[in-house]
Order: sequence, then structure tokens, then C-alpha cells
Amino acid sequence: MCEAVLDMSTYENRQFKLKSRPSGMVQRSDFDFVTAPAADPGPGEALVRVQYLSLDPAMRGWMNEGRSYIAPVGIGDVMRAGGIGRVVASNDPGLAAGDTVVGMTGVQDYAVVKAKEVTKVDPRLAPLPRFLGALGMPGLTAYFGLLDIGKPKEGETVVVSAAAGAVGAVTGQIAKIKGCRVVGIAGGPDKCRYITAELGFDAAVDYKSEDVRAALARHCPKGIDIYFDNVGGEILDIALSLLALRARVIICGAISQYNNMEAMRGPRNYMSLLINHALMEGFVVFHYLSRYPEGMQALAGWALSGKLKAQEHVVDGLETFPDTLQKLFRGENFGKLVIRVAAD
Amino acid sequence: MCEAVLDMSTYENRQFKLKSRPSGMVQRSDFDFVTAPAADPGPGEALVRVQYLSLDPAMRGWMNEGRSYIAPVGIGDVMRAGGIGRVVASNDPGLAAGDTVVGMTGVQDYAVVKAKEVTKVDPRLAPLPRFLGALGMPGLTAYFGLLDIGKPKEGETVVVSAAAGAVGAVTGQIAKIKGCRVVGIAGGPDKCRYITAELGFDAAVDYKSEDVRAALARHCPKGIDIYFDNVGGEILDIALSLLALRARVIICGAISQYNNMEAMRGPRNYMSLLINHALMEGFVVFHYLSRYPEGMQALAGWALSGKLKAQEHVVDGLETFPDTLQKLFRGENFGKLVIRVAAD
Repeated sequence: MCEAVLDMSTYENRQFKLKSRPSGMVQRSDFDFVTAPAADPGPGEALVRVQYLSLDPAMRGWMNEGRSYIAPVGIGDVMRAGGIGRVVASNDPGLAAGDTVVGMTGVQDYAVVKAKEVTKVDPRLAPLPRFLGALGMPGLTAYFGLLDIGKPKEGETVVVSAAAGAVGAVTGQIAKIKGCRVVGIAGGPDKCRYITAELGFDAAVDYKSEDVRAALARHCPKGIDIYFDNVGGEILDIALSLLALRARVIICGAISQYNNMEAMRGPRNYMSLLINHALMEGFVVFHYLSRYPEGMQALAGWALSGKLKAQEHVVDGLETFPDTLQKLFRGENFGKLVIRVAAD
Repeated sequence: MCEAVLDMSTYENRQFKLKSRPSGMVQRSDFDFVTAPAADPGPGEALVRVQYLSLDPAMRGWMNEGRSYIAPVGIGDVMRAGGIGRVVASNDPGLAAGDTVVGMTGVQDYAVVKAKEVTKVDPRLAPLPRFLGALGMPGLTAYFGLLDIGKPKEGETVVVSAAAGAVGAVTGQIAKIKGCRVVGIAGGPDKCRYITAELGFDAAVDYKSEDVRAALARHCPKGIDIYFDNVGGEILDIALSLLALRARVIICGAISQYNNMEAMRGPRNYMSLLINHALMEGFVVFHYLSRYPEGMQALAGWALSGKLKAQEHVVDGLETFPDTLQKLFRGENFGKLVIRVAAD
């Protein structure tokens, strides 16, 4: 099925392999950065030139030993990552050289992927990095978490943490589309200005300079109906203390805790669930696999009509991977964080 | 409407009044124990001779300052408590002297109650203390929490903590009625034997002598589908770590934390909700007020058919109140804990 006989070994493939399980913040020394020839795609597979890599909070969890929703990355394995790229050679009738695909490429220049495990996208519809953000997993995460668990009703108050992040920005905009009052929590005046002025949030709370409890209480005079949590820790506790009756707390992530050296911090105010007959529900976007087409269609529609805006933060160079991942955990990115591995 | 003109002041009324808000475990010195003449019932009211008082974990919360689902007991006020007793004099057409009523009587010998705020019961149907337990608020709490939030399906694994307690014992039996496999957590061999041999639980875990995590893992090989939590703390964390996909955690109480001098302990393993797409929902039985008749009817039906068994732990004497309340928090009661204030 190859369109031409190519010697894959002529492609030099730089790879980040997991060397050791990090303790606390992930470090460059937790990886081996090696170069190897690209592998040949087997039957049903394709070789993909990675163009952009997605940097996600969940990557930190994948590096830990132990039971989770997905097996940990093995020591010596290429670090897992979502990516978008161009098919160089295909050994499957569904893909042709030149196609653009999104999937789990790993942190490397060239990935051998199973054709049925990647999604073909039309690169003319949006800038490539957007397929890793608002039109990709983060967008779908916002879509299913907010709508399926949160079930927002018009006029309700929705609070989103990490609101300028890849998931939070989409969550808040969908909540606005559904007629809710939306308050975002973000770090710094630029991000706060962005979510209100650009994305249409009703209010922003700057957790770096404001008393979060006082500000949230002021912006949510009737309490919080839906809290979409990406951060955990202290901010989750504050949100719990301000719930309205029958509130829904959506547990999407806990970025404040992922590099924690101590035991995970649990939400001390969870008895607010009892007082307010509220629920807290978690999810992983993979649980909604069968409904991805519905979500993609909705997100693309809103994007095309201008109701869903997005911004990506592009860092150049595969070799920056460990440092760029640290940026994410320090909240230094502004918009969906991606690495440009090769030109468009 | 009085059936006879009585001088209420001839009734000597002993009362426990809240003197100070406890710090940590509730103490006798937190109350004033005083004697006053019984008050006259006004229009729409009745005077009730309290016969049994209910001792509930929730009482500890009512003694704290601050926002909750119900106003705190005021300093100088009679301590709030559920009770059952006989009407001595009525000033309402709906009640007559000799009627037996259940309601919030407070910790005292005689209570002036509003007729519409108490429920008339037939004392021939069950021993009086049962109307404060399996056929009262604890029974309704188990009924609505398990069925409305837990939504048990046949064959699912249900774990209940404080399983020999007033709520836990009913919860486990309803789960059995619904065809579930039921594992109870209780303290000591007697309680464990009781819930398996008498109440029909499939297994018991003795948290005082067993490794709770290992025992639960052994008894729940496919994970926990429903965890009904009455205790909070370490046991909640262990249950969270053993959830099955799409599990439901019902937050009914957190008796291990109510007398905590430190900050409340939050569930560190709450990210298990994310991994397992599970939910944690709290409730207070008062939220189901409009459905009490449905719940009462179901509980009474099961009790009459022998499917719902109950046991009460009766302590004699109103004057024992502070010490008996401590017994509850030390887990020294065996079955629903009540104080007998006056003979049946």
C-alpha cells in the first residue's frame, strides 16, 4: 500500500524517552533525548511526520506508576503525547501520504501510528495547533464535562478555573453559549483581560493578586451552580464553600496537585456537598469516545460562526520539551500550549 | 381546644440548654441542666410528654456556629433533638391528649410543639424507639440516600460504613432487598456478627481489628459500585481507592470528623472520581420532605414483612444526655441510640 518504496531509516527521529519516574516537578533529567532511524510502518500503519505536539497537564499523571485510567508510560518508552502531523508513508488503504492526522504520536519527530487510532483532519479549516486545542481533546473535554455532567441551565452561574487554559477557555465559552453567567479564575491581568474582553466571560478573578474567596463571593451572589475544576487544591475548597443548592462540581483535573511531593490534598469542604445536596463527578474525555463526532461537529460549528475563539501558545523545537512542560505546570502559557516540531 | 383545663406549670420540665459551643468532643460542661415549669401550648400547639429522645451524629453539627442546612442551636436554647412522646394537652384540632407524636422535641421532659410540625404515629405498630430509628429519620435517610442517589442495580456491590448504626443497618438491608451484594464496615466482632448473621449482609469488615483496605479489596473483587458513607476520614479514602467504573459515593455523614479539633480532613483520593467517571453526592433527609410518605410506607412494609430488622440501644434517664451523646461519637452504641425519658 506504500505509494512509493521509501527507506524509513533515512529519516532521523529524535525522541524523548522516559528515563525515570519524576518525584515532584518533572525534570529534563527524567528523560533520555535520543536519535534513531524512523521505523517502518507495518500493515494497517502509517509513518507520520509530527508537526505540532500537545502539552497537557495529564502528561504528569501518565509518568507515575500505578493504577489510573490509562497505563503509565513505561521506563524506556517514548513519552506519550498527542500530536498532529503529515503522513509520509502509509501501509493502510485509509491513509495516503500528504494526509494530515491527529492522534497519539509521542514526543518525537516521526511516529508510526495505527491508521484506525488517528483521525484525519482538513488542514484548511483551522491553524494546525487548533486541532490539538479547541478543536481537539481539550475542546471535547470541555464539551462533554460541562454539558454531560454540568447540565447547565440558562441563567445559572458557572465558575471555571484555569480559565485561560485550553480546556477552561472552551468551557467558559460553551457556558456563555448556553446562556449562563460565567466567572473565570486565571493567573495575572493579561489572562483575566483575555477571558473577559476576548472570550466574553462575565467576570474574571486573578488568583495571583486577589482574595479568591472574596472575589468569587462578590461575582456569584446567588452561589455557584456549576464549578468546572481544572486545578484542585485551595481553589476547589473555596468553590465548594460557595456552592448553591443542587450544584454540580465537575472534576476535570487538579493541576495544582500533580507535582505535589506531599500526599494529594483532598477537598476539606466536601461536606458542602451534603449541605447543598450537590454532586461532584469526575470524568476522562476517553469515556466519551463514541460521542466524539457529535462534540467535534458542535465545536467546529461554533468556531466557524465566531462563537468559539481560541488562542495557542507555540514554542519552537522538539528539544525544548521538558522545559516547555514545566512552563505548563508553572502556568506560564497563554492559551493552548504546543510545541512546533516541524514547519506547517 | 384543650380537653381539660390544666395548669402546665405543675409539670416540672428538666431541660438541657446549650451553654457554649464545644471545641472538639462535646462535654457535659457545654450544657446547662435546668428545671422550669412546662409552658402553655398556644393556638395550633400541643404539650408533649417526651418519652424517648433520638441521639444523632448530626447533633454535633447543630452545635457549631456557621452556615449549614439548618440554623445552629442558639446559646441558651434548649438543645435540639428528635423525640417521640404523648400529647398531654392540645390546642389544635388535629391532636388530642393521648396521641403519640414524633418530631423535634428538644432535650427536655416536656415540649410545646406546633401540631403541623409533628407526625402522629400508631404506637401499637412498633416499639416507640423504632419510630426514631428504622421507621423514622434514620430509616428515611437510608431510603432516599441509597435509592435516589445510589440507584442500586441488581448484582452491584454496595459498601456501607457505620453499618450497625441507625442509618447503616437500614441502608444495607434495603440494598439486599434490591439484590445487591452488601459489605458493611463496623467496629468490633459483635457488630460484625450482627450485620451478617442478623441483618443478612454478605460480609463485614471490622475496622477496629482488620486492615480495612485489604479486607474491602477481598470482599469487593470487582470494585465498589456504591459506597454509602457515614464516617468520612480514612475509610472514605480507602473506599474511593476501590471504586468501580461509574461508581456512586453517597455522602450522608462524617462522624469521624465531627469532633475534630483540626481542620476537616478532605478525601485525598477524590481523583478516583475522575479515573472512574464516578460521582460523589451529598444530601440531607430534609431535602426529601415531600416524599416522606412514600419512604415511610416502604419502610413500614418491609418491617412488617420481616425484611427490615432493627435494634435500638436504650439508655435510661434524660440526665445522662451529654454522656450518652459521647457514647455515640465513641461508637459504643449497638443499634439506634435513644434515651428513655419516661416509661412507655
